[in-house]
Amino acid sequence: MELDFINWLNANLPRSPLLRVGIGDDAAVLAWQNNAEIVITTDTVTEGVDFLLDQVDPKLVGQKALGVNLSDLAAMAAEPVAVVVSLVLPRNGSGKRNALHLAQEIYLGMMPLAERFGCIIAGGDTNTWDGRLVISITALGRMSPRGPLTRGGAKPGDALLVTGHLGGSILGRHFHVEPRIREALLLHERYELHAGMDISDGLALDASRLAKASRCGVALRLDSIPISPDAIKLAATTCRTSIDHALSDGEDFELLLAAPAIVAEQILADQPLDIPLTRIGTFVEQTGLWQIDQQGSTKPLPPTGYEH
Amino acid sequence: MELDFINWLNANLPRSPLLRVGIGDDAAVLAWQNNAEIVITTDTVTEGVDFLLDQVDPKLVGQKALGVNLSDLAAMAAEPVAVVVSLVLPRNGSGKRNALHLAQEIYLGMMPLAERFGCIIAGGDTNTWDGRLVISITALGRMSPRGPLTRGGAKPGDALLVTGHLGGSILGRHFHVEPRIREALLLHERYELHAGMDISDGLALDASRLAKASRCGVALRLDSIPISPDAIKLAATTCRTSIDHALSDGEDFELLLAAPAIVAEQILADQPLDIPLTRIGTFVEQTGLWQIDQQGSTKPLPPTGYEH
Repeated sequence: MELDFINWLNANLPRSPLLRVGIGDDAAVLAWQNNAEIVITTDTVTEGVDFLLDQVDPKLVGQKALGVNLSDLAAMAAEPVAVVVSLVLPRNGSGKRNALHLAQEIYLGMMPLAERFGCIIAGGDTNTWDGRLVISITALGRMSPRGPLTRGGAKPGDALLVTGHLGGSILGRHFHVEPRIREALLLHERYELHAGMDISDGLALDASRLAKASRCGVALRLDSIPISPDAIKLAATTCRTSIDHALSDGEDFELLLAAPAIVAEQILADQPLDIPLTRIGTFVEQTGLWQIDQQGSTKPLPPTGYEH
Repeated sequence: MELDFINWLNANLPRSPLLRVGIGDDAAVLAWQNNAEIVITTDTVTEGVDFLLDQVDPKLVGQKALGVNLSDLAAMAAEPVAVVVSLVLPRNGSGKRNALHLAQEIYLGMMPLAERFGCIIAGGDTNTWDGRLVISITALGRMSPRGPLTRGGAKPGDALLVTGHLGGSILGRHFHVEPRIREALLLHERYELHAGMDISDGLALDASRLAKASRCGVALRLDSIPISPDAIKLAATTCRTSIDHALSDGEDFELLLAAPAIVAEQILADQPLDIPLTRIGTFVEQTGLWQIDQQGSTKPLPPTGYEH
């Protein structure tokens, strides 16, 4: 449905020259007065889908709600400036917490993360209702002098790079989103990157989206994918392999980047980040998602992941 | 709870010199790069509180969700530029509409209103869940060269003015929000206004908030309040008077303005709008909400309205 809806929006929403990057990327880029530009994104988390309020500290829910938005700014290599927060609270709160206490805990979870990235919580809207908790955040970022890092610029031959380790975030990491802001800003400033996004719905699905937006395909070297210890732990209790978890669990909030092969080699030699950066594939002419084995033979890889 | 929470936010959120107007006004004002400024607001509507999805065309729900946000920009005398939209849709849609169709109808309801005010729909986030419909919109506006119209500037002796007619919006007018953007821009540009806001929770409650933010009180002339035909119609079926409906129904989305008495006289003589503009009271030293009768005697008026 998500793809159908994005296509429908692209066909039906009026275009504006002020909208430099529109529907379908991790964030929009809007021309503002005095030649300023605004990178803007909105992301919502809901009880029952993104968290279970009776099983988690509401501070972590607040932290996640903010983290996923900052991760979208990181995906554009934009620097966070401010957010506004809309809370829809269960009228009677949750467990022993009344609605006011619940709202405070959510904000207390957001505040340290906002502070770490110098991001202002500029205001919001707080409502109660008979339903479950919804947190909707809109984040505004300052654009990098090199312009936004979009999904559409990868070229066949480019390397596909990823930060960190993937899979098994459901064991708890999905609450502790580490938006890769500093990493994105540093890489985008120092190296020639062609495209980027964050992994929210699973490596396989998101890599296929990155390739699609760039009108090419991408082939993954499965044996090179950095698998999280959580994916291995999870695989021990599921009927699935750890690589399968790394490919399709999602909520990793790591960066997925396209860079010319020679640039990627330099980045990997430099390893300029405090976290690992790994080459996991190559963009190819043939559209779609592919896997390459150690012998170099290629076959289709299903773009599994979380579909909204 | 809303007031407690706003007080808590003001005490606990870190301050930033970039946040020119913060929590507690109709919108925030954020300093941006190149001396630009952004007026930003977020407002959420929820099924069961703001609308009943089985009793209304979803286009009207979309129109209302956008309208209330544009009305918040009007309250600051800011010009709408762009919005982002977050939808949380019931997984199975509503009635005969599936979730995709429902999302499309909501956007189709927003688009004509956005177009009328030259406002870009810049993107959004669309999710489904097992709960009821939530629409959360964030609107960005350009600040007037005269600066923002805030709640805090009314002075004792100022006149209280209101646009349009009040009360009974529940009969249907609350879906057809007419954000008073053009009216606010024109008045703020042409006359010296001290303060302003929009009426969302009821004249009595909102007038008391305007006075409180300005650290003074306000006395209403009940016989001068422009009563909507809807309030009269509604009063015929309730045990309440039409003036009571005009005072406390809310969702009028009319402008409530403070202007020096002599300026107010000029505005009323000019009647520069296509809609009525009426003087309904006077700001006074003594904090609180008051009513003045035709004999000039003053007594307290309860600040009734919709508490979130």
